Amino acid sequence: MFQKILVAQGGGPTAVINQSLAGIALEARKHSGINTVYGAFHGVRGIINQDLVDLSKETRENLEAVAETPAAALGSTRDKPDRKYCEEIFRVVRAHGIGAFFYIGGNDSADTVRIVSEAARADNYPLRCIHVPKTIDNDLMVNDHTPGFPSAARFVAQAFMGANLDNAALPGVYLGVVMGRHAGFLTAAAALARTDSGDGPHLIYLPERPFSLDSFYQDVKRTMEKHGRCVIAISEGIADAKGTPIATTLATKVEKDAHGNVELGGGALADYLSKAIKDTLGLKRVRGDTFGYLQRSFAGCVSDVDQREAREAGEKGVQFALAEGRDGSVTIHRQSTGGYSAGYKFTALEELAGKTKHMSDAFIAPNGSDVTPAFCDYLAPLLGSGLPKMARLGRQPVAKIKTD
Amino acid sequence: MFQKILVAQGGGPTAVINQSLAGIALEARKHSGINTVYGAFHGVRGIINQDLVDLSKETRENLEAVAETPAAALGSTRDKPDRKYCEEIFRVVRAHGIGAFFYIGGNDSADTVRIVSEAARADNYPLRCIHVPKTIDNDLMVNDHTPGFPSAARFVAQAFMGANLDNAALPGVYLGVVMGRHAGFLTAAAALARTDSGDGPHLIYLPERPFSLDSFYQDVKRTMEKHGRCVIAISEGIADAKGTPIATTLATKVEKDAHGNVELGGGALADYLSKAIKDTLGLKRVRGDTFGYLQRSFAGCVSDVDQREAREAGEKGVQFALAEGRDGSVTIHRQSTGGYSAGYKFTALEELAGKTKHMSDAFIAPNGSDVTPAFCDYLAPLLGSGLPKMARLGRQPVAKIKTD
Repeated sequence: MFQKILVAQGGGPTAVINQSLAGIALEARKHSGINTVYGAFHGVRGIINQDLVDLSKETRENLEAVAETPAAALGSTRDKPDRKYCEEIFRVVRAHGIGAFFYIGGNDSADTVRIVSEAARADNYPLRCIHVPKTIDNDLMVNDHTPGFPSAARFVAQAFMGANLDNAALPGVYLGVVMGRHAGFLTAAAALARTDSGDGPHLIYLPERPFSLDSFYQDVKRTMEKHGRCVIAISEGIADAKGTPIATTLATKVEKDAHGNVELGGGALADYLSKAIKDTLGLKRVRGDTFGYLQRSFAGCVSDVDQREAREAGEKGVQFALAEGRDGSVTIHRQSTGGYSAGYKFTALEELAGKTKHMSDAFIAPNGSDVTPAFCDYLAPLLGSGLPKMARLGRQPVAKIKTD
Repeated sequence: MFQKILVAQGGGPTAVINQSLAGIALEARKHSGINTVYGAFHGVRGIINQDLVDLSKETRENLEAVAETPAAALGSTRDKPDRKYCEEIFRVVRAHGIGAFFYIGGNDSADTVRIVSEAARADNYPLRCIHVPKTIDNDLMVNDHTPGFPSAARFVAQAFMGANLDNAALPGVYLGVVMGRHAGFLTAAAALARTDSGDGPHLIYLPERPFSLDSFYQDVKRTMEKHGRCVIAISEGIADAKGTPIATTLATKVEKDAHGNVELGGGALADYLSKAIKDTLGLKRVRGDTFGYLQRSFAGCVSDVDQREAREAGEKGVQFALAEGRDGSVTIHRQSTGGYSAGYKFTALEELAGKTKHMSDAFIAPNGSDVTPAFCDYLAPLLGSGLPKMARLGRQPVAKIKTD
């Protein structure tokens, strides 16, 4: 067993990553064998820099308040450690007599945990290495879904609920670009904004299907003819049939035009697709937004289901570390018993480290510009309680009168 | 007196514009003289097209549900009627025997009400014309603030609360571009995200002060040196000393570079300022977001103070229409009695029609890149109850140990 544990947070922050941190720190207090919980500032970088804090000295009250706060309370990092970096992590861990290492993060973080685990075994040092899942992209293998995704999905759904009504009030084309370079789950969440027939998003484009500008124009044209307006959810990662991201194609085209003076930034895909629709279809009112960092960091939009599961994933991490005689990753699974509930398993790191899950065919509509009811059924229970309700007027018409 | 009234909504939708609609429709039911409430679809355009609905047939329950729903339930319009258009409005109003016209909107809508009022008087037709205030820009004269602004301000504050923590977790420069072409109130609301010393936004740029790229670079550099990171709130309407919008300057520059092939869209200012910081200061991690439509239409981020006041502004509109022997605009005023409370007055249309209010000098910090405590005191009570709380770890450091 181990007395001292270390926890760190990696990758992009989420609305609930601190729930997992609190889950680990507070669960550890229930086990008399564990007397110290260290935290590393800014992920693995904080370990090699020995930039550590003692979470054992935090009050339960403050840990609970931090759990409700978005973004990584310990700080995060984009470092993707190689073997040498991982061996350095291991040296610090050993020097401090740490017996278990918990890393909350995505598939890169799982890979770091895997390499640190190997370094410890090669040195015959008894270190328990645990990966706790987190990513708004929802692209971790084995997991039914990952903590952080449901809250980000809720933000996207609420954003499109409002954007749909705004677009109905002032008709035209609205295009929202959503995060997710390789997996379309977060973009697909826009479908959950629909509460009535005719509601947008009317079109949803995912990186899992090749994107064609010609089909896009036709889709928008058809939607405008049918509804007199068009709301579109589009993944930042859409790519053409050859796999080249559309954003890259646009950037190359423009950079060439501008003799290298122009470099496209975060809002470029939305801006250029908006302009393309305007020019090609001759439409006046076309607006494009890029949801950017708001979708992962907005304070005050969180799924309570996500909060509970992120907490539990941290708690289970400590329990698995104590009960299982091996290293691994906490994975979330949907229970098959009626209604929605989650269960947790302990999975070998190799099964998800460095790998990416994509949306299954069963979740993508055959026309390639929408999701299926199966996807909505999958996501709906994850969004949590208290979603805003969208109401409409009954619209009893008044007969026209001849005016002079 | 009048038996039949007509209501319409104009300009950009807000989170609470339907509260004013419900306020008018439900208040009218309390007065036995009024037996019919019509609504016009898509603002004044719905009047000249006689695209009217009978709101008297809506249930109270549904009107209450619609009141909680963002965006204009009757639809809106960007039409800015001239005298001829207003005379056409008046002809439809007269044909339907309407005795009072309520228009919920900003300063352009107030101007429409003013011209319709004149047309009715010129024709000796007894029409009571009432403007009910609404705008997220908070730029209506006479008013202490306007319905719609507090909820949009809350969105901006919550966005920067999260963006600040995200930036603290992964340090660098973060720049958020906020709506408001001429008035900086909504951008200034970012200041309310701060809950601790060192919190961002560290810099706030408003259209009320000339923007200089050189000062901007120096401000960012100084902030990076002090905090190791920098969060910036910037108005889409920032302009140089000559009054030329920076977005226009950038667009012209780029269009020339690209021989007319490049047209800048909604995200361009954020993208170009981000790139400029990167290039000029040699910084790696610079991110720019444009809040776009989310800040006015996001479902589920609303100030309860704003909801109550928007409702009351509609109710007062009906009361003033019945009690005052003149046309006018409902204006909101801050009561001087201890604590925060709002009062309502009936103001001549000429005092605000077509005019724009800017942030007063007392609200802008002398250095031009921040707001004053007076502004925070002004805005804080408007944001409403239940703002998310941001908690931090106590950060008890662990002593470093020499590793081999």
